[in-house]
Amino acid sequence: MNISKGELDTLLQNVQNAFVTINTYPVSKRVALMRTIANEIEALGPELIETARAESNLPEARLTGEKGRTIFQWRSYADAVEKGYSLDASIDTANPDRTPPKPDIRKTNVALGPVAVFGASNFPFAFSTAGGDTASAIAAGCPVVVKAHPGHPKTSQIMADAISRGVEKSGFPAGTFSHVFCETNEEAQALISHPVIKAVGFTGSNRGGLALVEIANKRPEPIPVFAEMGSINPVFLFSGKLQTAAAELAKQYAGSLTLGVGQFCTNPGLVIAEQGAGLDQFTESLNEDILKALPAPMLNAGIAKGYTSNREKVIGLAGVQVLSAATTEAAEGQGAATVATVSGVDFLINDDLQTEVFGPFALIVKCKDANEVFAVTEKLHGQLTATLLATGDDLAANAELVALIQNKCGRIIFNNFPTGVEVCKSMHHGGPFPSSSNAQYTSVGPDAIKRFTRPLSFQNWPDEFLPEELQNANPLGIWRTVDNEVGNGAVGY
Amino acid sequence: MNISKGELDTLLQNVQNAFVTINTYPVSKRVALMRTIANEIEALGPELIETARAESNLPEARLTGEKGRTIFQWRSYADAVEKGYSLDASIDTANPDRTPPKPDIRKTNVALGPVAVFGASNFPFAFSTAGGDTASAIAAGCPVVVKAHPGHPKTSQIMADAISRGVEKSGFPAGTFSHVFCETNEEAQALISHPVIKAVGFTGSNRGGLALVEIANKRPEPIPVFAEMGSINPVFLFSGKLQTAAAELAKQYAGSLTLGVGQFCTNPGLVIAEQGAGLDQFTESLNEDILKALPAPMLNAGIAKGYTSNREKVIGLAGVQVLSAATTEAAEGQGAATVATVSGVDFLINDDLQTEVFGPFALIVKCKDANEVFAVTEKLHGQLTATLLATGDDLAANAELVALIQNKCGRIIFNNFPTGVEVCKSMHHGGPFPSSSNAQYTSVGPDAIKRFTRPLSFQNWPDEFLPEELQNANPLGIWRTVDNEVGNGAVGY
Repeated sequence: MNISKGELDTLLQNVQNAFVTINTYPVSKRVALMRTIANEIEALGPELIETARAESNLPEARLTGEKGRTIFQWRSYADAVEKGYSLDASIDTANPDRTPPKPDIRKTNVALGPVAVFGASNFPFAFSTAGGDTASAIAAGCPVVVKAHPGHPKTSQIMADAISRGVEKSGFPAGTFSHVFCETNEEAQALISHPVIKAVGFTGSNRGGLALVEIANKRPEPIPVFAEMGSINPVFLFSGKLQTAAAELAKQYAGSLTLGVGQFCTNPGLVIAEQGAGLDQFTESLNEDILKALPAPMLNAGIAKGYTSNREKVIGLAGVQVLSAATTEAAEGQGAATVATVSGVDFLINDDLQTEVFGPFALIVKCKDANEVFAVTEKLHGQLTATLLATGDDLAANAELVALIQNKCGRIIFNNFPTGVEVCKSMHHGGPFPSSSNAQYTSVGPDAIKRFTRPLSFQNWPDEFLPEELQNANPLGIWRTVDNEVGNGAVGY
Repeated sequence: MNISKGELDTLLQNVQNAFVTINTYPVSKRVALMRTIANEIEALGPELIETARAESNLPEARLTGEKGRTIFQWRSYADAVEKGYSLDASIDTANPDRTPPKPDIRKTNVALGPVAVFGASNFPFAFSTAGGDTASAIAAGCPVVVKAHPGHPKTSQIMADAISRGVEKSGFPAGTFSHVFCETNEEAQALISHPVIKAVGFTGSNRGGLALVEIANKRPEPIPVFAEMGSINPVFLFSGKLQTAAAELAKQYAGSLTLGVGQFCTNPGLVIAEQGAGLDQFTESLNEDILKALPAPMLNAGIAKGYTSNREKVIGLAGVQVLSAATTEAAEGQGAATVATVSGVDFLINDDLQTEVFGPFALIVKCKDANEVFAVTEKLHGQLTATLLATGDDLAANAELVALIQNKCGRIIFNNFPTGVEVCKSMHHGGPFPSSSNAQYTSVGPDAIKRFTRPLSFQNWPDEFLPEELQNANPLGIWRTVDNEVGNGAVGY
């Protein structure tokens, strides 16, 4: 961590002190902080993009877009806090005439406590130092300690400095945001194990996420870990749709598979379909697109190496055959699109075929009939997304399969593709284990704020001492549930 | 379990099949099921109360009240589902003109999957077979497997039969509700470890709850455990309030402490105050009330024995002095109210003084000054509730202490008492670890339903195939967030 245990203690004591202080701030001050941080990030000059390009191999257009997404996250989460969406404010008024008398009970969401954030390699802005986890934790009222991602340290530092400037300009204590570099796993472990830390946000690999969960569970006071660990995002091809659009779907699918050299947690790495003419046409067209795909540099040498070795591992499993691989040979550090096939029977007996190959790799599971499609689906691990390329008639004819697919994923998509995760209130980015460690919370969109809150009820509390969102007059003008009715007015006694 | 591993597999296969089936039901059918179950419980004759009296030693009036509470839970949770409160429905409409085009995204809460419920000894109706956990899981759309509490097996069976009648009358598959008797810990472990089970609800001891959490975390697919494990519910006495009301507060406090022979998870077992004339007057009055308190039979012999031995353990710790004990000697199986005192300094150095003594036992921590009150509060473990007996001026003068207390509990109470947990939307019954295993969810009130749900997003999904709560026409007439605005109308394109 480049800091000793003693220094970590001092750092986290400052963080804890900041937590106590910002707990007394009104919601409006938190909203202002978030908007100031957004402005600071927006004001960053070309150095940010240049540094990130050098550290991540990502192209300028992508990084410029990701910067915009990052700023949008801070601003839209601030809007959500201002509207009270993260607070779930609720009031049940007293009834002194009841036997026994009914007390006045009011509930809001308060901050969990200081949060440790572990950023991702593949989004140096939107899921790293200044990314969605940090924005949600700050929006929740929690101080944040980011463990900088080693893949893009200079980019992270530029973002950290922008956040710190925002913290200072908004009159928040410096301990509201901290940025540390960990050189060893032990240092990261010391951070999560520290009693001041009350929650963890993580985006990355399955192995990394599960390691954090294990440490968090072993603490004397276990804490929640919100780890988004990726998945293989199955795409289901239905016969009705294939009949009319196989070639077009193959083209769109190839685009989604190779987007960003396949380096997205929502990359659609698995195709499930019944064998037949429709599937043959789909694979034939896909083959053409894959052959033409140009290999491109991956985020870093380690990721490129991991892609090749994981791909070879899956290709080497029983029954797997390579369908097509980009004809242009990949240079060192590049990833070449590859598609393989396997039968439903072979897929059913080997869980290793569900290994995530991070990069532009897809496995097509050819099922002999509808029953085998169902069996393969039952066997699937939890997924962030599932995509159905289908007609309305396909959906109607396969109601039970569709219900089963819903039980396996966090987002279900109709004739569209999972890459491109919209930042909006209705987005759920998360899913049943092992795609995330906690299927009940999203890591994208303003509802991600709730990961870092917990409800607190006030009983018979004097109005003037209640948080603004629970006061009779409703000074924030937010929507609340009052005596079981939704409304945005004042409470009249 | 009185059933073998093979029989458990068969049972849970039925449960899983029921889950798939009820997943296709509309919300209204689930609401009807809950109301039918409430009616079945309401229709139970005097046999229910008589059986529960014999098995739990609880008086008739209490049991009659608890029956009403149980029925109210089923009905009010049904109302909450009908109003859409447990669904958090949200819609973000498409914008095809944006670059890239914005898809249509809609989100609702779906059932987590089959739930295992472990009931409590102290509420044979409201937190047992037909209690809040079962009602919330059914409300969420999850089948339930209840492990019957060994303290009141016949009562549990009567309730189980009532639920099963409701399930049958409402046209739900029998696997929607199951009731098993476990004779060993290994049998309970087999239930939680089974891959069909996706969540656990528990109310009981710290030891029991943590054992379930450990099993759940060790599964290949870890699952959430919502364990409400009790706490010692500190009561803070403030000098301003004590000046005018010490005797009256002592009387009310004694009433709360001895209510139901202290057998509530919200029993206020810890008092924290600065030493002085006010506290002296409080303890003097409390002493009189405690001396007069009549010992009463506890739930069962094991609980009475546990009360005595835990009380003696705490009384035997360094610095603890008995202030008063009921003068009437307790007969076998009875619990006698007891109050002890300890200094702030002694409390600070010994975590064992925070042991929950389940029964009418209180420890008064006498602090030498305000700083020591703050230090004692900092040292407190997570609590279900904290009670402040204070004036408005006391709150204003102790803002930082009040903020610290809020961080330690799930419900904070002003000049009222924690026993009596109101079943309402604004109730939070839960709190920071170790009072519950998950501070983010309540186990009382309709928000308890959300424990057994997870969000699912639909992207570009055809309107007719969406769940009703997300359809354009809003056929359920519920409140939803549409394009970031709260409303209960239809979505107009």
